[in-house]
Amino acid sequence: MSTDTRLTPLVASLPATVPFVGPEAQERARGRPFAARLGANESVFGPSPNAIRAMQEAAAETWMYGDPEAHDLRHAIAAHHGVGADNIMLGEGIDGLLGLTVRLFMRPGDCAVTSAGAYPTFNYHVAGFGGTLHTVPYVKDCEDPASLLAKAAEVDAKLIYIANPDNPMGTWHDAAAMQAMIDAVPETSMLILDEAYVDLAPEGTAPDIDTTNPNVLRFRTFSKAHGLAGLRVGYVIGHADVIAVYDRVRNHFGLGRVAQAGALAAIQDEEWLAHITKTVARGREAIAQIARDNGLVPLTSATNFVTVDCGADGAFARAVLAHLIEAGVFIRMPGIAPQDRCIRIGVGSDGDHAALAAALPTALAKTREDHGGQSG
Amino acid sequence: MSTDTRLTPLVASLPATVPFVGPEAQERARGRPFAARLGANESVFGPSPNAIRAMQEAAAETWMYGDPEAHDLRHAIAAHHGVGADNIMLGEGIDGLLGLTVRLFMRPGDCAVTSAGAYPTFNYHVAGFGGTLHTVPYVKDCEDPASLLAKAAEVDAKLIYIANPDNPMGTWHDAAAMQAMIDAVPETSMLILDEAYVDLAPEGTAPDIDTTNPNVLRFRTFSKAHGLAGLRVGYVIGHADVIAVYDRVRNHFGLGRVAQAGALAAIQDEEWLAHITKTVARGREAIAQIARDNGLVPLTSATNFVTVDCGADGAFARAVLAHLIEAGVFIRMPGIAPQDRCIRIGVGSDGDHAALAAALPTALAKTREDHGGQSG
Repeated sequence: MSTDTRLTPLVASLPATVPFVGPEAQERARGRPFAARLGANESVFGPSPNAIRAMQEAAAETWMYGDPEAHDLRHAIAAHHGVGADNIMLGEGIDGLLGLTVRLFMRPGDCAVTSAGAYPTFNYHVAGFGGTLHTVPYVKDCEDPASLLAKAAEVDAKLIYIANPDNPMGTWHDAAAMQAMIDAVPETSMLILDEAYVDLAPEGTAPDIDTTNPNVLRFRTFSKAHGLAGLRVGYVIGHADVIAVYDRVRNHFGLGRVAQAGALAAIQDEEWLAHITKTVARGREAIAQIARDNGLVPLTSATNFVTVDCGADGAFARAVLAHLIEAGVFIRMPGIAPQDRCIRIGVGSDGDHAALAAALPTALAKTREDHGGQSG
Repeated sequence: MSTDTRLTPLVASLPATVPFVGPEAQERARGRPFAARLGANESVFGPSPNAIRAMQEAAAETWMYGDPEAHDLRHAIAAHHGVGADNIMLGEGIDGLLGLTVRLFMRPGDCAVTSAGAYPTFNYHVAGFGGTLHTVPYVKDCEDPASLLAKAAEVDAKLIYIANPDNPMGTWHDAAAMQAMIDAVPETSMLILDEAYVDLAPEGTAPDIDTTNPNVLRFRTFSKAHGLAGLRVGYVIGHADVIAVYDRVRNHFGLGRVAQAGALAAIQDEEWLAHITKTVARGREAIAQIARDNGLVPLTSATNFVTVDCGADGAFARAVLAHLIEAGVFIRMPGIAPQDRCIRIGVGSDGDHAALAAALPTALAKTREDHGGQSG
């Protein structure tokens, strides 16, 4: 904490911790690159070739600001979802949009509800605007709508966060369950439905989009199935009256020309999305098999990663993770018990999976040695 | 304004106005593209060819998030300025960084000081965080350090904004004047020194960078001389203790991989920057000559635009602007009297200048007709 008395008391009270340390920082610390980059839920299969071409063409036009209204991209996304362009707000990734959303709805002292161990960047923004965060436990490795709604009613939550599918567990609820949750949101609350991974989930995971409902905001991204994490483009779908409010506070020129061009080509390439969905499903099975081959239990996943139960406690899983990182396999893991008995492994290339398969037995053996024969 | 009672009272009170309407929106409204795009202070000469190449290569790597610490770019910028990497914070353009800066230092009701008619995005962010903005007039078309400091002392300002060189007037103070201002900033205030255009100003405009001074933050951008407005990369230079505080609130993964690659190549191409500086200086003279040829008075400019005194009042200048836009020449103008007697014309290509030279006599003639022979 700083002792700079010019800072607002809120900012002065905030910790210097960051939601995620990047793999590049870890590579700099270890002095060599990772052999497999499977920790950030990126798509190693890359974006649509059309998107790469569009970005390369746009590179020569970067002397111009991007359209602050992102008209073409916004209309293409609206068409993709069958909603109006005024139901879409674009931003610098879901992360950036979550920050704006917290700012719109939460005063210092207002409450938000999430699950203990769910996506930490939401928590970061709630803290950043002085909100009070209440958590409920996962139930059977799933975020639990009933618990979230009950806690929200108890604390009069302004915002209720749920990711479906969930990160870091990869679990999900079907559309009927999510629709029931949406229908139960109190009028005084807003449901933040983070659907970053929904393109990769089974048919029937996303409930129908109803833009007449002012109590739910649905967050989508180009960072996962679309393979454009390094562009930073996300969007939120909602009631036009709510969407319009973002214009009062957002960085209007925040979305650049290359970013808009790449995302536009990506949203229009349905074929690539279908190809990626299948490829990722095969990759999940490959990782699950590697886990099983090593006596571990993979959780069924609707995302581009597989969360693997190491069969013991958090200390055990953290040791497995450390040994894998030492061996050049970048992965991450859930931060909170009991989910932290697991490690989280992103779908990669065949080469990435081979590196994982080669490193995992040794990582487990070393961990068991350190932990005096603890199972896992 | 929305009547949504879930919004914070501050957000509910904010107007829906935006700092700038993009030229694309104007093109959509008029149904045809502009012949000359000279209104957004962009660099028609584009970025360094090395930057274009770097962005094109990075396009294939966009499946990876950008390094959240922007290590390589930050270190290259630090080397460029001869400061430490911990004196540099990158962000989504100066606009984004201004928003974060206001958030760090201003509580609702706190005061900031700027000049009436200066860069409006600072004002937008002050309003967005509930701050109270005090303004002082320009003096001889320059932002006036003495007036700003006096007002800051009077209202106990948390933030004092000045752009040097100034936008929208193109005027500037020399390094000695700016250093005197920096030295006079009260300990309880922070000087926001926006140097977006300083690369294009005469030698001796930027005072030495002193990172031991915790009372000044200096804002730079890749959007102007570097020709990368469409990438959205800006940075702030300051005392390491102040710079570190941004990490508590910023969107850590907000700067993408293409953006970092393009900016890195740009900062390393000193030759291109020197070429652009000369080219822009020639372009300023070309615009000034067109203004003089039409009986108007160009202000001497240290930027990539020339502000031209139309010799009458704001209504007259607004009519000239409207006629130029009608003729396909996109420009903007100062918003507040007495500066709004001027129009602001960006340096363009020879073709852009030819379009301006062709359109200006008619625009002036039509305006004089409408205004009953008013001079200008």
